[in-house]
Amino acid sequence: MRWSKCYIPTLKEDPSDAEVRSHKLMLRAGFIRRLGSGTYSYLPMGLRILRKIEKIIREEMNAAGGLEVLLPAMQPIDLWKKADRLGLLKEILITYKDRSGKENIFGPTHEEVITDLISKDIKSYRDLPKVLYQIQTKFRDEPRPRFGVLRSKEFIMKDAYSFDADKEGLDAIYKKMYDAYCRIFDRCGLKYVTMEADSGFMGGELSHEFMAPADCGEDEIKEKNGGVRKAIELGHTFKLGTKYSKPLGAVYLGQKGEVRDIIMGCYGIGVNRIFAAAIEQNNDKDGIIWPDLIAPYRVMIIEVDPGDKDVKKATEKLYEELQSSGIETLLDDREERPGIKFKDADLIGIPLQIIVGNKNLKDGKIELKVRKTQKHSVHPAGEIAARVKKIINL
Amino acid sequence: MRWSKCYIPTLKEDPSDAEVRSHKLMLRAGFIRRLGSGTYSYLPMGLRILRKIEKIIREEMNAAGGLEVLLPAMQPIDLWKKADRLGLLKEILITYKDRSGKENIFGPTHEEVITDLISKDIKSYRDLPKVLYQIQTKFRDEPRPRFGVLRSKEFIMKDAYSFDADKEGLDAIYKKMYDAYCRIFDRCGLKYVTMEADSGFMGGELSHEFMAPADCGEDEIKEKNGGVRKAIELGHTFKLGTKYSKPLGAVYLGQKGEVRDIIMGCYGIGVNRIFAAAIEQNNDKDGIIWPDLIAPYRVMIIEVDPGDKDVKKATEKLYEELQSSGIETLLDDREERPGIKFKDADLIGIPLQIIVGNKNLKDGKIELKVRKTQKHSVHPAGEIAARVKKIINL
Repeated sequence: MRWSKCYIPTLKEDPSDAEVRSHKLMLRAGFIRRLGSGTYSYLPMGLRILRKIEKIIREEMNAAGGLEVLLPAMQPIDLWKKADRLGLLKEILITYKDRSGKENIFGPTHEEVITDLISKDIKSYRDLPKVLYQIQTKFRDEPRPRFGVLRSKEFIMKDAYSFDADKEGLDAIYKKMYDAYCRIFDRCGLKYVTMEADSGFMGGELSHEFMAPADCGEDEIKEKNGGVRKAIELGHTFKLGTKYSKPLGAVYLGQKGEVRDIIMGCYGIGVNRIFAAAIEQNNDKDGIIWPDLIAPYRVMIIEVDPGDKDVKKATEKLYEELQSSGIETLLDDREERPGIKFKDADLIGIPLQIIVGNKNLKDGKIELKVRKTQKHSVHPAGEIAARVKKIINL
Repeated sequence: MRWSKCYIPTLKEDPSDAEVRSHKLMLRAGFIRRLGSGTYSYLPMGLRILRKIEKIIREEMNAAGGLEVLLPAMQPIDLWKKADRLGLLKEILITYKDRSGKENIFGPTHEEVITDLISKDIKSYRDLPKVLYQIQTKFRDEPRPRFGVLRSKEFIMKDAYSFDADKEGLDAIYKKMYDAYCRIFDRCGLKYVTMEADSGFMGGELSHEFMAPADCGEDEIKEKNGGVRKAIELGHTFKLGTKYSKPLGAVYLGQKGEVRDIIMGCYGIGVNRIFAAAIEQNNDKDGIIWPDLIAPYRVMIIEVDPGDKDVKKATEKLYEELQSSGIETLLDDREERPGIKFKDADLIGIPLQIIVGNKNLKDGKIELKVRKTQKHSVHPAGEIAARVKKIINL
């Protein structure tokens, strides 16, 4: 992607309405913009990062046997009444009455909807187990929207639901989901801890939280040395048992024809929170340092003297070569001063920078910079592409 | 994908609450389920089709220079007041007051939001032109939800917006978008006509509708012979001019430093409508006949005698081979009678069926069936994979 053709409105100053590091950096890097209280637009670079996170989640959920579905955001309130969960969540629910007078909820979560869905199509023990999941926008009337996408009114969740014939089945799937979660957060380059937690408004017998230590965290985790640290909740897994299947009539016929309640689990991940937590854990004074697998691009080429014919020729050749090798590359071809380009490159945090300037190029050289270590090195122009491929491990 | 591990709850009978062919078939094939009035859940096969359509749209929009973004569904009502569009759409708007007393709209479209967004970051003629688009769930309090996903309260739209310095720029982008739309509908296997249309509540000077002829269509198109046909509106493109940029203050600085209004266009596609229209145009008495590029899987293997060891061995080998060649394959490994499997295969409409039964296999043969023509042919087992690859053009 050429910067000049993209839409990356970086800001020179920290915006005044952002308190925490990730929020400031997401705004400054031109990844997001605020629309209203607790709602954010994702610009092209921000969306790219979001999609990379979603792709990792999807791959791991599919590998664990999950089946992707897409449920409506709008839910009939009657389902929530049946499951008797209206009181617990009423404060944050966004509801509206449609023209026929029926009341609806814009779903903050989907236990009721999915339990109702499968109750109609799952009939026998032979249809079990099943894990259904979706990656979908959720809504809640958040009392204190803050910290950018960390606590917002509209957010993207991966919510998975498991359906089993018995507790042993649930235990096995729960373990599988737990392991998938670890792989997801590992691949996203996050440091995290897991802890047994209170099931809260979800109900059920056992739950685990996946927490990313961060200065701006709103949850407390206890450390081995007895200290307490703040952390961001990234995910939460629950053994629900029959809390939803019983009131919503989700039953199956057992091997002897007996009617039994389906045993459920549910498993959530805050997609936007991974985005913010990755920044909280990976930044320095100059900007973001993206973990490789969720970086918007793997490599960035900085054209230091776009007016220089040789520089133009060298960057275009390199850009072509990297792109055709399948390496996602951002080319900063703007007619801006070098200082601005270097600052923006460090700000948006692409892991590897290739700096093409006429000074080095006269000696047949091109410069490489690793964003994380800030280490520069100079190499023969003809070797750069091979070197980049090697670093990226292609 | 193995049918036994997936979630494809086909129905034997036409559901009583569906009127039109596509709606009946989507329910019967286990692609969607109704949740409430005008809201539908997409099950794994349905979502796969939706994602294939989205992928085609994304590829063509990117090829035409579009940049993908994601805007909030929730919009402050003030923006709509500024653009003076509240009155025109009030009837179908879903609004709610948040806990702070501010009124919000669940977006049925995003002209206001995107114009506000770019007004803050686009400054100079050098930042133009730009085309931003998103693929996103929209909401409206539809007076008469019907025909399944064709007229629903919650639906997926691709909405693109172009920003230009002048009318010549808009004309050029409009043409590009028009051509991209043609390629999208072509690749989705749709027959369609385009016509100049009334701009309606969007405003602006020129618009085109893309219409798919279908028995259940709710719009009229005039034919060359003077006759009138019904059609489904798939997409609509608008030259908006300054209708939104003027009231929302989206201006840029021209080459001489003069302040000018940004010239806009907008371009919508109903993603779910492509889904339904493709079925309306491609079905027979037995079920759906998917156009190749949006079929949930390209090939289906039907294990006629799953109890037979040789059949099992042959299907597994074939399944492995096709999958590893990158051919998306559905394997019906259910322990069901052949009649049920054949009926389901025709119903869900995967273009190519491979039928593995012990009768043919004893002679070293496997059967191929083309869904569209219903033509059967029998081939040496060892040649099937190569033949399938050839048909699929790999």
